[in-house]
Amino acid sequence: MKKMVYNFSEGDKSMVQTLGGKGAHLAEMTKIGIPVPPGFTITTEVCAEYYKLGKKISPELWDAILKNVTKVETAMKKSFGDKDNPLLFSVRSGAAVSMPGMMDSILNLGLNDEILQGLAKKNERFAYDSYRRLLQMFGDVVMKVDHDHFEHILDSRKKTRGIESDTELTADDLKYVVDEYKKVIKERSGKDFPQEPKEQLKLAIEAVFNSWNNDRAIAYRQLNHITGLIGTAVNVQTMVYGNSGEMSGTGVYFTRNPSTGENKLYGEYLMNAQGEDVVAGLRTPQHIETLKKIMPHCYDELVKIYKKVEKHYKDMQDMEFTIEDGKLWILQTRNGKRTAYAAIKIAVDMVKEKLITKKEALLKVDPKQIDQLLHKQLDPIARERAVALTKGLPASPGAAVGTIVFTAEDAEKAKEDGKKVVLVRTETSPEDIKGMAAAQGILTARGGMTSHAAVVARGMGKCCVSGCSELIIDLTTKTARVGNTLLKEGDYITLDGSTGTVIKGELPVVDPEMKGDFKTVMNWADETRKIGVRTNADTPHDATVAKNFGAEGIGLCRTEHMFFEGDRIKAVREMILSTTELGRRAALDKLLPMQRGDFEGIFKAMGTLPVTIRLLDPPLHEFLPTKEEEMQELAREMKVSIKVIKEVTESLHELNPMLGHRGCRLVITYPEMAEMQTRAIIEAACNVKKETGNDIVPEIMIPIVGHVNEFVMNKKIVDETAAKVMKEKGMALKYKVGTMIEIPRAALTADKIAEHAEFFSFGTNDLTQMTFGFSRDDIGKFLPDYLSKGVLEIDPFVSVDQEGVGQLMQLSVQNGRRTRKDLKVGICGEQGGEPKSVAFCHKIGLNYVSCSPYRVPIARLAAAHAAIKDENRRE
Amino acid sequence: MKKMVYNFSEGDKSMVQTLGGKGAHLAEMTKIGIPVPPGFTITTEVCAEYYKLGKKISPELWDAILKNVTKVETAMKKSFGDKDNPLLFSVRSGAAVSMPGMMDSILNLGLNDEILQGLAKKNERFAYDSYRRLLQMFGDVVMKVDHDHFEHILDSRKKTRGIESDTELTADDLKYVVDEYKKVIKERSGKDFPQEPKEQLKLAIEAVFNSWNNDRAIAYRQLNHITGLIGTAVNVQTMVYGNSGEMSGTGVYFTRNPSTGENKLYGEYLMNAQGEDVVAGLRTPQHIETLKKIMPHCYDELVKIYKKVEKHYKDMQDMEFTIEDGKLWILQTRNGKRTAYAAIKIAVDMVKEKLITKKEALLKVDPKQIDQLLHKQLDPIARERAVALTKGLPASPGAAVGTIVFTAEDAEKAKEDGKKVVLVRTETSPEDIKGMAAAQGILTARGGMTSHAAVVARGMGKCCVSGCSELIIDLTTKTARVGNTLLKEGDYITLDGSTGTVIKGELPVVDPEMKGDFKTVMNWADETRKIGVRTNADTPHDATVAKNFGAEGIGLCRTEHMFFEGDRIKAVREMILSTTELGRRAALDKLLPMQRGDFEGIFKAMGTLPVTIRLLDPPLHEFLPTKEEEMQELAREMKVSIKVIKEVTESLHELNPMLGHRGCRLVITYPEMAEMQTRAIIEAACNVKKETGNDIVPEIMIPIVGHVNEFVMNKKIVDETAAKVMKEKGMALKYKVGTMIEIPRAALTADKIAEHAEFFSFGTNDLTQMTFGFSRDDIGKFLPDYLSKGVLEIDPFVSVDQEGVGQLMQLSVQNGRRTRKDLKVGICGEQGGEPKSVAFCHKIGLNYVSCSPYRVPIARLAAAHAAIKDENRRE
Repeated sequence: MKKMVYNFSEGDKSMVQTLGGKGAHLAEMTKIGIPVPPGFTITTEVCAEYYKLGKKISPELWDAILKNVTKVETAMKKSFGDKDNPLLFSVRSGAAVSMPGMMDSILNLGLNDEILQGLAKKNERFAYDSYRRLLQMFGDVVMKVDHDHFEHILDSRKKTRGIESDTELTADDLKYVVDEYKKVIKERSGKDFPQEPKEQLKLAIEAVFNSWNNDRAIAYRQLNHITGLIGTAVNVQTMVYGNSGEMSGTGVYFTRNPSTGENKLYGEYLMNAQGEDVVAGLRTPQHIETLKKIMPHCYDELVKIYKKVEKHYKDMQDMEFTIEDGKLWILQTRNGKRTAYAAIKIAVDMVKEKLITKKEALLKVDPKQIDQLLHKQLDPIARERAVALTKGLPASPGAAVGTIVFTAEDAEKAKEDGKKVVLVRTETSPEDIKGMAAAQGILTARGGMTSHAAVVARGMGKCCVSGCSELIIDLTTKTARVGNTLLKEGDYITLDGSTGTVIKGELPVVDPEMKGDFKTVMNWADETRKIGVRTNADTPHDATVAKNFGAEGIGLCRTEHMFFEGDRIKAVREMILSTTELGRRAALDKLLPMQRGDFEGIFKAMGTLPVTIRLLDPPLHEFLPTKEEEMQELAREMKVSIKVIKEVTESLHELNPMLGHRGCRLVITYPEMAEMQTRAIIEAACNVKKETGNDIVPEIMIPIVGHVNEFVMNKKIVDETAAKVMKEKGMALKYKVGTMIEIPRAALTADKIAEHAEFFSFGTNDLTQMTFGFSRDDIGKFLPDYLSKGVLEIDPFVSVDQEGVGQLMQLSVQNGRRTRKDLKVGICGEQGGEPKSVAFCHKIGLNYVSCSPYRVPIARLAAAHAAIKDENRRE
Repeated sequence: MKKMVYNFSEGDKSMVQTLGGKGAHLAEMTKIGIPVPPGFTITTEVCAEYYKLGKKISPELWDAILKNVTKVETAMKKSFGDKDNPLLFSVRSGAAVSMPGMMDSILNLGLNDEILQGLAKKNERFAYDSYRRLLQMFGDVVMKVDHDHFEHILDSRKKTRGIESDTELTADDLKYVVDEYKKVIKERSGKDFPQEPKEQLKLAIEAVFNSWNNDRAIAYRQLNHITGLIGTAVNVQTMVYGNSGEMSGTGVYFTRNPSTGENKLYGEYLMNAQGEDVVAGLRTPQHIETLKKIMPHCYDELVKIYKKVEKHYKDMQDMEFTIEDGKLWILQTRNGKRTAYAAIKIAVDMVKEKLITKKEALLKVDPKQIDQLLHKQLDPIARERAVALTKGLPASPGAAVGTIVFTAEDAEKAKEDGKKVVLVRTETSPEDIKGMAAAQGILTARGGMTSHAAVVARGMGKCCVSGCSELIIDLTTKTARVGNTLLKEGDYITLDGSTGTVIKGELPVVDPEMKGDFKTVMNWADETRKIGVRTNADTPHDATVAKNFGAEGIGLCRTEHMFFEGDRIKAVREMILSTTELGRRAALDKLLPMQRGDFEGIFKAMGTLPVTIRLLDPPLHEFLPTKEEEMQELAREMKVSIKVIKEVTESLHELNPMLGHRGCRLVITYPEMAEMQTRAIIEAACNVKKETGNDIVPEIMIPIVGHVNEFVMNKKIVDETAAKVMKEKGMALKYKVGTMIEIPRAALTADKIAEHAEFFSFGTNDLTQMTFGFSRDDIGKFLPDYLSKGVLEIDPFVSVDQEGVGQLMQLSVQNGRRTRKDLKVGICGEQGGEPKSVAFCHKIGLNYVSCSPYRVPIARLAAAHAAIKDENRRE
């Protein structure tokens, strides 16, 4: 029989599968000498065995548990069940993968009527409160007495006493509550609350095992595709109390600042309080530094510990501690969540400190997260000059400028109306989440760095200033005050989430820049990654932004977007309305100089970097007006009757435009369109080459190819036109002709297409649409059901569906390169900037990914991650 | 050096690649002693060599040609270039694959001014006509003088002389024309027509080689995807003349009746005529039998020859002959085209005659063609009683009933108006083809069995009576007469294409039956084929028709078609308009008994044969009205405001319904729909089992699956409902749950889906739409261009695109069977009855194809062909 129970001194962090995440890290800390309240872990294998035995705890297991109880008693010099010096336990679940809140826990285990009296001698209120909590949890979890019954008793008592908060309840109140709880347990379950501590323990362990297969837990595992786990471990740990008096306290801290990354202990605590009091935000906690004065020895020990643990885990840690009667206990450590800014600073600092390598540092920055850094910041000069109205905690960095709203609903409404607002609240709660998402930023009067507002805002990458204590909000008049300053709904306000500064009025914001540590990390990423990162950009402005973000070229320049600018749409419509080739050519001649100008701008912006230009993609009807008045205006402009406009619109109508007459199919019918576009590209390249001396090598991309013949016919037009233009210009120019791979058939016949195409670019938007048979425009009717019911794990338009779409991609790369060894392959669908998709593209050997300008740094980092993980796997 | 020139006596039919089709069969006939005008073939390899040498005839080649000329001179006892007894040649192209009319030919080669005089001694008009033809062809093909110049001279002369036909030109007219032709050649080409016969020969051979790469020929090869050929062979053959006097003639014949298959010589000829006179239909030719009286020795020889050739080729032959001065020559043989009816009779007869095996017989019947036999025929009793108005030639079998039209345009217009018409013409020409297609049948006054009308009608599988000589048509009054009977436009007429009978009035027609030789062939097919043939049928009637045609089950029963019948659509709309599950369930409850009734009918019709029922496939908006008045009616019926109807319609609107909320996706949102349908199926199966004792095993098919989870969730509902129903009924029933493979992603993840699905059925309509990204509804805008420009060889909705869609199918079969060894796989898309697609399905190992009832026999035969060809390949 395998070892069933591990004392915390027997395991380590490598045993996550056996001990669960919580158990393994408690053991690891114990191992390196951190003062963890003693305890033991019953393995996940035992849980599986428990179910095999028909939900029974075997005598051998019980034996092992009791032996471990004894060990803890020895260590703590207390006895489980002793009325004078009682040892109490917490019994907690803990699987190998975190399933927060899904399974059950019971605290204060080991109390009974008699032991309570022993405890009460020291602190009566504390003793009754602990007992009341045990009764409530045990009653609910083990004895299946509905939660509501307990809540009801508690609420009644508070009402009777005219108080609002649990903390206001006196020892007498709690005595009354304990009695009532015991009655309701008896009444509802038909049994008395078991007074025997060992019986409590056994029942509690069974309850935790049982909770592994409760409906919530099963649903959670399904929804999150957590498979391969055999059960939960059970952690039985000595209870310690931060609320047992003035020499007690509890707190959380980060080994470095999770907001700025500064290498300085960062955290908060409350004396004579329990853990949840810190998180709840009802009392504003003290900064951890102040502990130095209050309990210097505890503070010194804390510093020693945090340094040791961080060095051990080689990462910034998020830790919980409790001081019970002057003795420091560490209850938890885990890698700390942090802002992107902090992640970058920490990563760079730790390399400087020689704690980690560059590659390890890169892995500490989550590519998804750095999106935060790519948003606007306050203009530094304006900020310098601005007078702060007040200051709060810098809960989540970035800048927010907007008019004030005081409720989440108002924020949502304002968002719908296109207004930019800052949500100002006393504190936030889960009901406010939508409003927080709708706002530019969040300002709260109460709550610390770990308050609801702070945690949620950081998660959203949204600017937040919390715990701004000078702020007094009057919801009834929708106004707020800071000293003598009145803030009304609709007034402008500016937040600096990185400093906690609040400024009245509207400050200018600037675009993010890549510098300092961010630049360092990005440079490391570039040194490390194997695949290129290009951008999707249709204008010189976008091209420049992307280049500054490190884009190594344009992977997709959509020419149709240019068709909508200014007066061009008129010429486009003229072309569409022409019934003859001659008429179409006349209209295209008008478009030519405009398109040429666009391309010149883009070529100039990109210098010698490659630019891939896609020829016209959408069906023609997308360019026609749909409303009666617009049609009438067009008729007037074109000097035709509205009947003609309607007829053409009708004739171009498609039942499934996604699968209609578009892309290269249009060119088969109207070759003159590709002629004009090719001419514009080649002429622009010649002109810019002449002007700048840069060797421009345009990459012309044919969209919607499904059959090699389509490509061949399109390429022929491009080649003939290019030859003609070069002859006219008397210039020789290299250019490439390639294709989008966005039709399943193109992927399936990539070998044939690669005989003619010089490069491929995956159009994963359309490829996903056709591979799934999902219309992106219509998916809203069923995708939410698909995600909530677990049919799909993730929206395949957000992250490449590796199993299906990815299979086609892999096939294309393999088969395409079989025909053309040096075939360059990229991706330019929306997923090109999504980290998981970037990793997949790395894996299947793409040359580059291309994404929107603001995602370029994300893609660069994700590509580095992929390369490092690949390397680690090989080692 | 390989042999460059083959005398006809040196080759055989196996040498098609070297000698071309024409050359190989001339050699084969020569080899077995058929009197073929002597000649020789220059190989296709020489053509390739000719191009390699820069379009030069090498001295060695010229030497070999001259040696062969001498051989022919010896055989014919005539001399090439001899003015008294001249040998003349035809020089014809002939590639390994027939490219009719694409390359050049020159006849009467070897004539010049001097030799002409020798020939003229015998028959002056004939001599000048021959010379004029040589000048025209040689001038055009070799000397590049435009065709029009010659036509112009000929037309002027006819105008001057006031005549219309070439045959009315006298010897003097032709003398004039010859002089003018020589002048125009000199004038336009700057050179005289070469008088030296050997020079003529050399230039002619070069011209034929050059024509291999003329624009037309290149385009034809591209369009028809003819690849792998190295060049054309050149056939140089002794000219023989059927128009050299009263002892001469020319004709064509089939070794058996190509219309009925009767084992009797069948053909027609004209004395003192050239080949094109027979085909042109200007003079109505004589029946071949009459030759017996006119030239008994020629007739006897013809009979001997045709029997020999047919026995040799083991197939009905289509042959051309010429009699020159009483001597019979055979100019061509090839397998004869025939009606489906004839093909079947010939195949069965030849097996009876022990000429061929059953399998060889099966290969002689083209599956595409038997469609003809599946169309209506005249009711035999009515036909027996009916008085024939007149009789023509039975040019194409079947029956046609309709009102008379006299022009092709009228036929087209009538078709548009939904009228059934018979096209009555003196003779037809290529401009009439659309009208012919629009008509039920064609009746012509002139022209034989090989006239334009007859050939085209047979090709179309359309009833035709030709050469109805009693019929006199007056186009100006749009009337026709047969004796005293007047036929006006709009009068009913009935044709029996199998007998040539024309009946005034409207006779009843009957559905085709499978009997006699047809049944025999179908039985052989069933013995031979390896894959099953099912049908797509939604009603008991269709199921019965298909069963009678030999369907072995239903491969696709579309339940949504049932939703439109009678009052059901109301309940369907009620369901769609319900905003609650309760409301939907109430509406579904109304549909349940109707659907159950449908399934009972189908199960009864099919007996113990398997029935695959597909659950609801289309998006819900397809069931809602689109017109204002219909909406208003629906609003009244449903007792809701029209606003509600419009809102629901609007909310269900989809931009790309093909890729929308449909099939199994609906069931994820509204499980109650699948519950109702499953209940209807299982209840029906229980009821029919109880009533008939037949063991019904319903196959329930989930549509639009793209991800295994979709299938699993749908199957769960089906299984739970089935279990519930069986419990209610107290009956046990086997049933299967499988899926359509119609989404590319399903094909790509077939291994995963097969873990749960018990069968697959390829929905190649949707699979083609998504693999190509083609909307079937919108393809009309570009598919014609695609086919005409050669982007696609064939409409992929007609015949499975083996390269792309087929690749996904093959993948599905392989991967599906890897997971589930005995996975049953079928196809139920439209292509399931198309012979090439059937062959492909056989090749990739499908268990069955399923097609519309009328295509079942086609599929059975196609499946047999596939099996035989497979066997032959393996041997």
